[in-house]
Amino acid sequence: MTQSDSRITAGMIVIGDEILSGRTKDVNIGAVADFCTDLGIDLAEVRVVSDEMDSIVEAVNALRARYTYVFTSGGIGPTHDDITADAIAQAFGVALPINAQARAMLEARWKETGTEVNEARLRMARIPEGADLIVNSVSAAPGFRIGNVHVMAGVPVIMRSMLEALAPTLEGGKKVSSVAIRAAVGEGTLGGPLGVLQTEYPDVKMGSYPQMGKDRVMTELVLRSSDEARLAEAADKVRAMVAAAHEKAGIAPPDAE
Amino acid sequence: MTQSDSRITAGMIVIGDEILSGRTKDVNIGAVADFCTDLGIDLAEVRVVSDEMDSIVEAVNALRARYTYVFTSGGIGPTHDDITADAIAQAFGVALPINAQARAMLEARWKETGTEVNEARLRMARIPEGADLIVNSVSAAPGFRIGNVHVMAGVPVIMRSMLEALAPTLEGGKKVSSVAIRAAVGEGTLGGPLGVLQTEYPDVKMGSYPQMGKDRVMTELVLRSSDEARLAEAADKVRAMVAAAHEKAGIAPPDAE
Repeated sequence: MTQSDSRITAGMIVIGDEILSGRTKDVNIGAVADFCTDLGIDLAEVRVVSDEMDSIVEAVNALRARYTYVFTSGGIGPTHDDITADAIAQAFGVALPINAQARAMLEARWKETGTEVNEARLRMARIPEGADLIVNSVSAAPGFRIGNVHVMAGVPVIMRSMLEALAPTLEGGKKVSSVAIRAAVGEGTLGGPLGVLQTEYPDVKMGSYPQMGKDRVMTELVLRSSDEARLAEAADKVRAMVAAAHEKAGIAPPDAE
Repeated sequence: MTQSDSRITAGMIVIGDEILSGRTKDVNIGAVADFCTDLGIDLAEVRVVSDEMDSIVEAVNALRARYTYVFTSGGIGPTHDDITADAIAQAFGVALPINAQARAMLEARWKETGTEVNEARLRMARIPEGADLIVNSVSAAPGFRIGNVHVMAGVPVIMRSMLEALAPTLEGGKKVSSVAIRAAVGEGTLGGPLGVLQTEYPDVKMGSYPQMGKDRVMTELVLRSSDEARLAEAADKVRAMVAAAHEKAGIAPPDAE
């Protein structure tokens, strides 16, 4: 990619036995992927790890060294299996004291709702030393940012509210635009000429995705680039290639893109 | 865990830029998680990586050394961005010739459907030397197993058909049973006593999952163990703990578990 020097990258870590057991189906990966794409951040890798200290610490240290940003979801609640804050503190080699600001946010909410303050709930005010809080507009218990690592809740609605809260603090990359082109032939028919076009346009990433329609096989081609002009030029060539494939196969083109 | 010596573990690798860009929302992680849980296999880690040789090779080599089984999804189609077979061959240091049996499977299907044989489509018959094929009952192009790595398609219906095909070849672990217990109080109320019970029952894994109901906060507690008797005993204690919490809060218990 020509803009590789200016790429803003991210890694994500999903923390939770419930995802690995299948009991809960993750939706946070897709939300973070969409979030990154919108900001021009290149989400390069995701890891799903269990609620075990060593697994979390290893993933955090691997990804924070490799990417501009790391986003985590899960494991910041009040129960014994919520050990993400502990793991982050260990990964960064810092203490994990009760944070006065986090405690005040929680106590204000608890006062409103008549919720008892207890040791389990106060776990949620433990924040690694040197971290900034990420506001949780849904249920008060904050996430936090330390270094390039952003620690968020696993409950999807809370995680999305935290993404909104931290968006203004992130540096976006060059926005990547995309064009989708549908073809009414299988990707095996398009693979050869598409590969040739990919070589001609190394700065336009061309993906091919099979779709099994009701009656016939379809293919969606997706072109992505941060250079609008090159993207448009490549898209025209791909459209011509697809039209030729349709004509050769004697079939009508599919509905509008 | 008391049965740690006999644990059968797995890692999964999801391969595809379309997942990392958010264009496609992954459902294969959940399917593999359910599949592993049903067989008593402990899915320990998942990585989502891009369609880049180095990323795939690194993930394959990391996970195949660490877990009993590795499952991959994505990147075995006919287009230039389908490089999973190339990456697996490189990870294992073997050649990637056209496999006669795979070619025969594909050609039989292509003959039925009147599909042209071309170079792009024949990419799907390239199988690392020494690998066994995994039958694809949906669209013929096979997956394959080499060493402990099982390579499957990314299209969900095809991936699930491949899981069915390889299930009889896998050694299952001791089946883990689970009990779910619902509480009509927040997990902050239960966290303290639940942590005490977790210490008493280290062989019963206790998870706590917050749920934001319409009117009030709920918590689902999930207990998992391969020892049915210990699980039942622990579940009784957790139920008693939850009942006490309900009584203390002066609220009716939620609907049946």
